[in-house]
Amino acid sequence: MNDHSTNSLNIPDTGKPRVVIIGGGFGGINAAKKLRNKGFQVVLFDKHNYHTFQPLLYQVATAGLQPDSIAGPLRNILKGQEDFYFRLFKVSAIDPEKNRISTPAGDLSYDYLIIAGGTNPNFFGNQKMEQNALPLKSIPHALNLRSQFMQSLEQADLTKDPVTRKPLLTIVLVGGGPTGVETAGALAELRKHVLPKDYPALDFREMEIHLVEGLPRLLPAMSEKAGARAKKDLEKMGVKVRLNTMVESYDGVTIRFKDQDTIDTSTVVWSAGVKSGEFPGLKPEWLEKGRILVDEHCRIPQAPNIFAVGDIALMKGEKYPKGHPGVAQVAIQMGNFVGTNLTKLRNGSPVKSFSYFDKGNLATIGRNKAVLDLPRNIFLGGRIAWWIWLFVHITYLISFRNKLLVFASWVWNYFTFDKGNRLIIRPYVRKNTVPGGGLA
Amino acid sequence: MNDHSTNSLNIPDTGKPRVVIIGGGFGGINAAKKLRNKGFQVVLFDKHNYHTFQPLLYQVATAGLQPDSIAGPLRNILKGQEDFYFRLFKVSAIDPEKNRISTPAGDLSYDYLIIAGGTNPNFFGNQKMEQNALPLKSIPHALNLRSQFMQSLEQADLTKDPVTRKPLLTIVLVGGGPTGVETAGALAELRKHVLPKDYPALDFREMEIHLVEGLPRLLPAMSEKAGARAKKDLEKMGVKVRLNTMVESYDGVTIRFKDQDTIDTSTVVWSAGVKSGEFPGLKPEWLEKGRILVDEHCRIPQAPNIFAVGDIALMKGEKYPKGHPGVAQVAIQMGNFVGTNLTKLRNGSPVKSFSYFDKGNLATIGRNKAVLDLPRNIFLGGRIAWWIWLFVHITYLISFRNKLLVFASWVWNYFTFDKGNRLIIRPYVRKNTVPGGGLA
Repeated sequence: MNDHSTNSLNIPDTGKPRVVIIGGGFGGINAAKKLRNKGFQVVLFDKHNYHTFQPLLYQVATAGLQPDSIAGPLRNILKGQEDFYFRLFKVSAIDPEKNRISTPAGDLSYDYLIIAGGTNPNFFGNQKMEQNALPLKSIPHALNLRSQFMQSLEQADLTKDPVTRKPLLTIVLVGGGPTGVETAGALAELRKHVLPKDYPALDFREMEIHLVEGLPRLLPAMSEKAGARAKKDLEKMGVKVRLNTMVESYDGVTIRFKDQDTIDTSTVVWSAGVKSGEFPGLKPEWLEKGRILVDEHCRIPQAPNIFAVGDIALMKGEKYPKGHPGVAQVAIQMGNFVGTNLTKLRNGSPVKSFSYFDKGNLATIGRNKAVLDLPRNIFLGGRIAWWIWLFVHITYLISFRNKLLVFASWVWNYFTFDKGNRLIIRPYVRKNTVPGGGLA
Repeated sequence: MNDHSTNSLNIPDTGKPRVVIIGGGFGGINAAKKLRNKGFQVVLFDKHNYHTFQPLLYQVATAGLQPDSIAGPLRNILKGQEDFYFRLFKVSAIDPEKNRISTPAGDLSYDYLIIAGGTNPNFFGNQKMEQNALPLKSIPHALNLRSQFMQSLEQADLTKDPVTRKPLLTIVLVGGGPTGVETAGALAELRKHVLPKDYPALDFREMEIHLVEGLPRLLPAMSEKAGARAKKDLEKMGVKVRLNTMVESYDGVTIRFKDQDTIDTSTVVWSAGVKSGEFPGLKPEWLEKGRILVDEHCRIPQAPNIFAVGDIALMKGEKYPKGHPGVAQVAIQMGNFVGTNLTKLRNGSPVKSFSYFDKGNLATIGRNKAVLDLPRNIFLGGRIAWWIWLFVHITYLISFRNKLLVFASWVWNYFTFDKGNRLIIRPYVRKNTVPGGGLA
């Protein structure tokens, strides 16, 4: 055990081995819960004071849900846990030799470190894109997108000129994974059921929703059938799906594709790539494409008291030679796995290897429309898949309070065909620009 | 009728007389609703795209409610109304001679103007106070206060030193009106039921809630009994009530009173004064202490096509020689009154004078604790008053969706003794400072 006697983060030395967890996402909170009262001290770091249920972020962005409905205070999720500490800091560096992490308020020693930092949007070095496109990985991102979209509509309502109006009514979603597909579907429903009542002077046949994917299919992490069905359903809803299309640039006015085709648009959503958070101090040979290489125990082989779970972990195996998919289930199972194993590893008891139990894969497209891959190559589409999607998401929400609020909102949305959260709470101002037309 | 043929705000000339309404608060939306399909064109301006149910802002600030629960998109509230237009702009000036208002996007002519701009916090020229204290008049204000409070707790948890910790656990509420009283009560309940579970390392006997009022009593707009009962109930809950106390200064560290007593505190909430929004163009002799002097028809005598309703209107009468109280009921009734009368006034038909029907006055203090003044000097305190308070607030919420969400949240809060919205969605950064200790 390391010396924990002093630190500037006011974590007492209780004599128990200290587990530091970086990140309060699915991996982090499940690891922390499994360590409950097991003889460890647990210190959780996150730059937000809440856990985000990421699979529903697109509904916050498209006015279907309130941000507080899909988030829970981390201190509340882990309350009553003995010798547990939460600290609202981003961990800025790791020192694996001295067993120490750094934060802006000082350093902290650890006996075990669990890195569950998740991923950030990856713009692949395209600075213009990073400046002008909107990612969708956090609650502030979702509120930015909601504001930008509503602000564009307000601006569109100010002009008679179709050339000025067109880009304000055009949205381009880059990335044909679940985020792109689900956001496209939700926007198409807003266009059909909600917006014409709010903006009677606008003709919503002018509004275009483009979904752009570099590969020849949608939902590449799901079955061929799921991808094809999503495409068919979205196209029926009026979404323009462009496959085999790579994006070159977006200057805030025009998005240009590699084939030199262009679209003028005020709103580009970027969900075409993610990268792990950076932790200076991890050796470059421990990483591959920004992910942390771990063994079958989610452990860095060269630093056996450091674990990585979730999106950030790259565990190569027979079944998943390129690592596991970046989904909530993997993070939850890895978090549980490491949390459970830590007691055994400390005692030197033998532990099993991690094995991902794939319960299936889901994406929703719209009202009564979803796609579902189940084990044994079973595929479901349409209404049944959609009901299962609803049920699964309510079930996995973090607290009973979240379940209650999301359920109430969904019942409301379903029966009224309305989505009530069309508020510009915090106007979105693009980096390096001043607020646009509709805002004063 | 004025010439409406061109404008840069894309409002068409439909041949109907144009009513411009400034402000989507209680006064503005009720006036607009009464004008529904009555042969007028209605154009509503607000700097937010939503209506705020201000009486419940303190619950958003104290984590009891989500911001979206007490707000409704203005376009949705007034949807389906013929020849109605919403514009997301602050009106910057009025030209009563040319019958024209100005916005950052251009001017607009009107035939009738209804000023329902409400009030803003009044710091009486105390710039240091304005820079450092937190007002509570809008949803962004409420979220700022929530963030500042939660951030202070995170910082308090970082230190062993009681001298550093004390100001972080001290809140001073300036102003003993409903905002101060209700916020103090809600904070006392958080301290008792919620925070000790979230911050087991902190001793919440150290946390101090001060409520400061310049007059010799609380709730000066209510009965003596209500004020005395509120004081007694709050003191039982551990709130330190200081009457006859005027504030001199607050530099972000220490609040100083006129009697030279001081309190060190990281959080000062300012609800000790309001002032009307400013509209350059209105003649100084039309105003008194920043409020617009109106006749018994809510009309500016010297400009009979301009009306003012709600807090901003000063109608002196026998019963209210200093004008009506600044409460939602007055704004609602004045908005309805002007909206209804406009048709009659246009036709030259006689109209009745405005007469405020005071249905009573309510303030809540905590669970099962409220004060209620009814007509004929009837006073109620305690549990019955509290249930009436709940019922009245649910009833007056703007949409069925708001009612549903607030009801669900309150049922949850009541039975669990929890308040779930303890999220720092947007960290609060005091003007002229950089983010503090707990944030990185």
